[in-house]
Amino acid sequence: MMNERDDEHLRDACGVMGVQRHPEAARLCYLGLYALQHRGQESGGIVASDGQKLVRHVEMGLVADIFDKAALEPLKGSLAIGHVRYSTAGGSSLSNAQPLLATTTHGTLAVAHNGNLTNALTLRRQLEASGSIFQTTADSEVLLHLVARSTAPTLREAIVKALRQVEGAYSLVFCTKKELIAARDPYGVRPLALGRLGKAIVVASETCAFDLIGAKYVREVKPGELLYANGGGVKSFPFAQSPRQAHCSFENIYFSRPDGLIFGKSVYMVRKELGRQLAREAPAKADLVIAVPDSANVAAVGYAEESGIPYGLGLIRSHYIGRTFIEPKQSIRDFGARIKYNAVPEALREKRIVLVDDSIVRGTTSRKLVRMLRRAGVRAIHMRISSPPIVGSCYYGIDTPTKKELIAATHSVDQISGYLGVDSLAYLSVKGLLKACGGDQQRFCVGCFTDQYPIPLMDFAKKDVRPVC
Amino acid sequence: MMNERDDEHLRDACGVMGVQRHPEAARLCYLGLYALQHRGQESGGIVASDGQKLVRHVEMGLVADIFDKAALEPLKGSLAIGHVRYSTAGGSSLSNAQPLLATTTHGTLAVAHNGNLTNALTLRRQLEASGSIFQTTADSEVLLHLVARSTAPTLREAIVKALRQVEGAYSLVFCTKKELIAARDPYGVRPLALGRLGKAIVVASETCAFDLIGAKYVREVKPGELLYANGGGVKSFPFAQSPRQAHCSFENIYFSRPDGLIFGKSVYMVRKELGRQLAREAPAKADLVIAVPDSANVAAVGYAEESGIPYGLGLIRSHYIGRTFIEPKQSIRDFGARIKYNAVPEALREKRIVLVDDSIVRGTTSRKLVRMLRRAGVRAIHMRISSPPIVGSCYYGIDTPTKKELIAATHSVDQISGYLGVDSLAYLSVKGLLKACGGDQQRFCVGCFTDQYPIPLMDFAKKDVRPVC
Amino acid sequence: MMNERDDEHLRDACGVMGVQRHPEAARLCYLGLYALQHRGQESGGIVASDGQKLVRHVEMGLVADIFDKAALEPLKGSLAIGHVRYSTAGGSSLSNAQPLLATTTHGTLAVAHNGNLTNALTLRRQLEASGSIFQTTADSEVLLHLVARSTAPTLREAIVKALRQVEGAYSLVFCTKKELIAARDPYGVRPLALGRLGKAIVVASETCAFDLIGAKYVREVKPGELLYANGGGVKSFPFAQSPRQAHCSFENIYFSRPDGLIFGKSVYMVRKELGRQLAREAPAKADLVIAVPDSANVAAVGYAEESGIPYGLGLIRSHYIGRTFIEPKQSIRDFGARIKYNAVPEALREKRIVLVDDSIVRGTTSRKLVRMLRRAGVRAIHMRISSPPIVGSCYYGIDTPTKKELIAATHSVDQISGYLGVDSLAYLSVKGLLKACGGDQQRFCVGCFTDQYPIPLMDFAKKDVRPVC
Amino acid sequence: MMNERDDEHLRDACGVMGVQRHPEAARLCYLGLYALQHRGQESGGIVASDGQKLVRHVEMGLVADIFDKAALEPLKGSLAIGHVRYSTAGGSSLSNAQPLLATTTHGTLAVAHNGNLTNALTLRRQLEASGSIFQTTADSEVLLHLVARSTAPTLREAIVKALRQVEGAYSLVFCTKKELIAARDPYGVRPLALGRLGKAIVVASETCAFDLIGAKYVREVKPGELLYANGGGVKSFPFAQSPRQAHCSFENIYFSRPDGLIFGKSVYMVRKELGRQLAREAPAKADLVIAVPDSANVAAVGYAEESGIPYGLGLIRSHYIGRTFIEPKQSIRDFGARIKYNAVPEALREKRIVLVDDSIVRGTTSRKLVRMLRRAGVRAIHMRISSPPIVGSCYYGIDTPTKKELIAATHSVDQISGYLGVDSLAYLSVKGLLKACGGDQQRFCVGCFTDQYPIPLMDFAKKDVRPVC
Repeated sequence: MMNERDDEHLRDACGVMGVQRHPEAARLCYLGLYALQHRGQESGGIVASDGQKLVRHVEMGLVADIFDKAALEPLKGSLAIGHVRYSTAGGSSLSNAQPLLATTTHGTLAVAHNGNLTNALTLRRQLEASGSIFQTTADSEVLLHLVARSTAPTLREAIVKALRQVEGAYSLVFCTKKELIAARDPYGVRPLALGRLGKAIVVASETCAFDLIGAKYVREVKPGELLYANGGGVKSFPFAQSPRQAHCSFENIYFSRPDGLIFGKSVYMVRKELGRQLAREAPAKADLVIAVPDSANVAAVGYAEESGIPYGLGLIRSHYIGRTFIEPKQSIRDFGARIKYNAVPEALREKRIVLVDDSIVRGTTSRKLVRMLRRAGVRAIHMRISSPPIVGSCYYGIDTPTKKELIAATHSVDQISGYLGVDSLAYLSVKGLLKACGGDQQRFCVGCFTDQYPIPLMDFAKKDVRPVC
Repeated sequence: MMNERDDEHLRDACGVMGVQRHPEAARLCYLGLYALQHRGQESGGIVASDGQKLVRHVEMGLVADIFDKAALEPLKGSLAIGHVRYSTAGGSSLSNAQPLLATTTHGTLAVAHNGNLTNALTLRRQLEASGSIFQTTADSEVLLHLVARSTAPTLREAIVKALRQVEGAYSLVFCTKKELIAARDPYGVRPLALGRLGKAIVVASETCAFDLIGAKYVREVKPGELLYANGGGVKSFPFAQSPRQAHCSFENIYFSRPDGLIFGKSVYMVRKELGRQLAREAPAKADLVIAVPDSANVAAVGYAEESGIPYGLGLIRSHYIGRTFIEPKQSIRDFGARIKYNAVPEALREKRIVLVDDSIVRGTTSRKLVRMLRRAGVRAIHMRISSPPIVGSCYYGIDTPTKKELIAATHSVDQISGYLGVDSLAYLSVKGLLKACGGDQQRFCVGCFTDQYPIPLMDFAKKDVRPVC
Repeated sequence: MMNERDDEHLRDACGVMGVQRHPEAARLCYLGLYALQHRGQESGGIVASDGQKLVRHVEMGLVADIFDKAALEPLKGSLAIGHVRYSTAGGSSLSNAQPLLATTTHGTLAVAHNGNLTNALTLRRQLEASGSIFQTTADSEVLLHLVARSTAPTLREAIVKALRQVEGAYSLVFCTKKELIAARDPYGVRPLALGRLGKAIVVASETCAFDLIGAKYVREVKPGELLYANGGGVKSFPFAQSPRQAHCSFENIYFSRPDGLIFGKSVYMVRKELGRQLAREAPAKADLVIAVPDSANVAAVGYAEESGIPYGLGLIRSHYIGRTFIEPKQSIRDFGARIKYNAVPEALREKRIVLVDDSIVRGTTSRKLVRMLRRAGVRAIHMRISSPPIVGSCYYGIDTPTKKELIAATHSVDQISGYLGVDSLAYLSVKGLLKACGGDQQRFCVGCFTDQYPIPLMDFAKKDVRPVC
Repeated sequence: MMNERDDEHLRDACGVMGVQRHPEAARLCYLGLYALQHRGQESGGIVASDGQKLVRHVEMGLVADIFDKAALEPLKGSLAIGHVRYSTAGGSSLSNAQPLLATTTHGTLAVAHNGNLTNALTLRRQLEASGSIFQTTADSEVLLHLVARSTAPTLREAIVKALRQVEGAYSLVFCTKKELIAARDPYGVRPLALGRLGKAIVVASETCAFDLIGAKYVREVKPGELLYANGGGVKSFPFAQSPRQAHCSFENIYFSRPDGLIFGKSVYMVRKELGRQLAREAPAKADLVIAVPDSANVAAVGYAEESGIPYGLGLIRSHYIGRTFIEPKQSIRDFGARIKYNAVPEALREKRIVLVDDSIVRGTTSRKLVRMLRRAGVRAIHMRISSPPIVGSCYYGIDTPTKKELIAATHSVDQISGYLGVDSLAYLSVKGLLKACGGDQQRFCVGCFTDQYPIPLMDFAKKDVRPVC
């Protein structure tokens, strides 16, 4: 049995969405989550408020499967927040699915979280010791308890106090009976955008969610900013100084959809520039540039443009999102790659190709792809990766394998090249990455490429504690 | 509510698969059907034989959802056939799902059919009048009754007699307890390929099914040929003269996957040639060639190569195969296009583009796409279609709207251009199509482009009788 | 794992229901089937006609689970027939569930059957040899093919011709677009009653179905009679002479509900008389008469009345209709009895009891019950059975174990008494049974008590052919 | 649509079960819950511990439907507790289903509760005000938070402290990784019994749960007693003085199964004595005593014995436990009674009957039953109720309608008699009830018959606060 959780890519942990002042808030939320589906394919959920009570629907599975008419019907009202989620192997269960919902002394409150808190375990132990009961293993639940314990006079202030207690990466959307609240950690690790649809206010992890519902992009939620909307407009409350910024560079490399803006820039343009920069840093003599579809398509187009080598289609991808496949017992060679990709021999035979991919995690799928291309008759394969080697885990909301599973953490580029069976292999440099992103190490997090992390690791500094998103 | 059955493409009716002499016949069948999923997304089914009895599992839905371990477990044995299916609105039900299975005086027999019989209704009326009871509304069931009624001494001969009674298009796979039988109509309308995997024999609508399971392509099943395999090898029985051939040209234009061979040629190469020929027939002054993804990607690459205009990515496609979407009551403008596509403004702004699509059926989605591109800031849109205008229905196994729904059947190219809102519109010529396919009107069916049909329409010659696939 | 298909009782094969000229025909049918649920708990189904087309819904399971609002909604029209069904182990599948539905040259026709045809296999072989395709393994399907093959000018005549070809036991309800037809075999083995509800005509296996919907009992459908109702009233067509009658005596002993009439008499009165007769034939010295609840309640009351020994409650029964239970691996002694019954020690301690049951099939549950009563402290158990020893299988529609599983077929009453561990055991005599039923061997079938069968066994005369209901 | 939640009976809120030191603890728990199914038919659940972790499975529905092999498989270990539950209309949801499970500073803890806390709302408000987050609306969750907040050095002491803070009725079973704890309120309102099965310790609401699994009854858990079992035996900790006792008299009248012991006595014997006492207090001239089956069977036998009038069967009951029925739009007269009962005219015609029922709540079903008996031809109906008129709600764990829905709260016996249409009506006196139960007002709660309540109503003393069990 094999499923789509293969080894070739890191997986983002979550996407969030919020809508206020729209008569069909939950339906827009649902469509927004569909647009954000690539950010999390294990569970989805919406909490909606009609001003009187909050109704919650969460399920394992894909957004379009979870939310049919019957599921959306009870989600009435003009205010809603939603969430899509991946999870690590251990934490994959419905009880951890978001938005989380709780009744506190500050009223009923729901929260959807993208990111990862680095001191959640410590806070949880403290809260449990003084009598709090946790219902999930999600780090996000700590936030609800901190709010519940707060003696601040208003919910908004209680949330601010809670945010000041947590460390790590968070793009958050809260909803109460009448209020929509969005907040982003002082480092701005994960994206979070503000938009408008007529009178309605919308927030979403990526702007593609706005495009689908016809909303207009206004601006990013700023690092260290809390946006508070109680039905009569949006107010901004900066709640923390930002010592520096640490936008996740992997959002540009792979996670975010190319048809949107994050960190204020077009993903498409950045990604194409990654390809161009790669062509400059690591040229190759070849007849054809092909991408590992679809995630490397834009970088490959950039590489082709910069290098002058024609862009072509040599790999066909099947779209089997969220599905699991049963493999015969007499196993099929390279099945994991075949189920997803097929080569087009007529396009490849006797060609020298540049094969562009966005990243290499374990390398096993790449190796199978290389064999598939060899069987299709290519003459030479020059593999080019539009990001630097991944040498460290992410502690800020991305599901990364342990260090020893990361091929680049334990092998040289030469060794990897030999393992993959390519004629040459080159990665983009960290410097080139930052340049293409349009920033420097004070603006972007490149922790997984350098093993140096901009935000204190707290609980994770101890050995053997892995983030459970 | 809107689902993926939009108006932009014709839908193929079916795909078939057969495996013999392999200990995991049903599992290979299932993988083959997954590779053929694009040929039919409404239902899937497998019949397997362990030499003693035939076991059948059919369900509505996608192959990967239908066949989990529990569903595959009872499908034991070394012989299996499978089927994926679309259907017209009226005939969409589980009872019509294939393979069909029946016990006849010649033994238990299962059949999977791709194509459409043009005299099925007439034959059915005759059979009912003499006491046959039909269980489905599928034309394919007629074949089973003809076999059941046959007094021929062997099953093979009974099938041959049945095939000589039916008219129309058929690529068929039969299985009994021990025999695998494949047959193709004398015109060779739909593809059907023969392959080998070690000792095992495989047949499939397209060779991509072979690639996934590691089987080798041997040759096409010939028009008018019946292949008979009883476990000890394959024998060929030509059962009818082919007055001419009538390979479906739409298989090359849109249906078949580009990573395979049909009618003995590479779909990729033919499709790229369609784009090249289109560039020759209908050049345009533009800065960028973009495809309506993914079906027009190859033709767009061909157009770009021939024209010298750079190929780019301007539309991002969501893959929501087989899913239905709920639209807000306050409907979203161009929702039908947005749910599937999003434009990348940064790639398109101020550009003059050639927009390549493979066909236009009703034109409504194309119109929405054009508006989406305009909103993204393109300066000019030159739409180029890699097939001629569709002016007639298909009677040989493709689900076509009625003539009055086909925009090109009732409007000139100029009128369509105005409706779509493009700066220019051009279709490939029939002659150009045949040239790119590498044949002439004696080899390919171009009925839907010319309203002239190579095989007698029989029942459909009467008014108001529409094919029910 | 153990389920309710225990060994203590024979199981009836089916119940049928029909309604015509009522705006909610399907809903009444559904309620009638609920009242007939005891006649078959494996599957249920309804076919309804709105005058234009027949719609069918069948499912495995209990009537109240199968038919919710969504399931009933499409069953429109003023005409409907229904069916509940048991089945033997091998034949338990949805494809055999009734009513069966087929399109024939005489139009679309549905049929629901209670009984068993003794020459179905022979007829099936003949029909298959001349080209008929069967979809089920149910004997009832033969009837549809005989009708489809008939060249009779009308459907009614075609049915009559078909009925004259089959042998065995049948109470049948047919429906077409506009006609309701009921028929009963010439021996009148299974019950079938005619009723009225205002203008509406109803037929049902038992009159309790009439009581629930408020219909009035009119009369039995006569042996060898076909009732034909085309919307304008009911016409009677005798189609066969009745050489003798063969009402199933087990309907009185166990199957039919006590709150109805069958074969024209009150089941309650007959069953009480069975108890009285038993008391006369086999008196006992005891302090208390208790029944094995609920099926023996009435006979026990009769025994108590006739004997003058007080009737009491000593066994409590759980109602777990249609459910399966998981037994611990460390198995619980007499679990099969405990899951269904519990003794009331306070009612039984130190008492000498008459334990009345309606029949003994394999004896294993009875044995467990006896042990349970011993543990509860009874001093003596005089077991009395309100039917004769079962020594032969039923071939007319009841699911009986094979002869060697029937304890009375291979053991004397003394041996059974020893096996059960009772102080005394007595069965009702065949003569006493017939007397209580109010008839003789020319009116009632007592085949399972005498191994002499009133209707030719045909196919079953051959060894190893068992009825598949 | 009508379902089994008719008006004729009060509904018990819950049943609990616990097993320790048995290798198949969860399976025994499941069987025990099946035996207790009558105490709660809306949801069921089990928490099991293998010594390392607690696993929980709860679902809406009946025990036999919830727990199949797959559901039981993960419930490993030698310790388990279980719960079946009714709920009021508003509170019927899976999130309230028990056992509840929480991780506290005292470790992971599960609890199953039968009863109702009268100060839960007050406690909840206090806990929420100081930062606790509640996940359910169940009163039982308060207990978990009190334990979590407790600074007592051991879990056992923390539970004792929590129990001293709550008021009302509770029979509780807790489990941790290794400990089984049972406790009962100082009034002993709900039953709770201790048993043994070899080395294993079992506790259950009623002893019928012991009978099914072959366990032996040891004694009741005493009012105000906590039993603590950590794997090495059971220790008793009295935690509160009992000012008086308040055993629920309705357990004897209706709720508990007759085949068990509660409050140390046989339910069967008490219930028969209720019938005898009723016969003494309210004799009638009649030919036949019949019960409303099955709940009044024992009382009717008692009435018959005492009065000398023969006991008979005049009403047949269908067992449609937990099912919902769809009624035709042209509604059937007295449908609510017909779906459950049918009269046997032959047993009733021209008879004067004593109709024994255990209680009358709203009276609507009784009225329908009376009409059904009239239609069956009875000459006179003397209705006798084996409990006093219900004039007040229960606040200790029984789901009662509001006072204005209770027919006896607003009508005299004469008025009720007229409404029901009986020839005479009599209830048992409170004195007679207590006498039959073998106690007095210092031992039994008769609050619902007198509107005087033995335990302070606390939150419910305020108007408009209704218990949510």
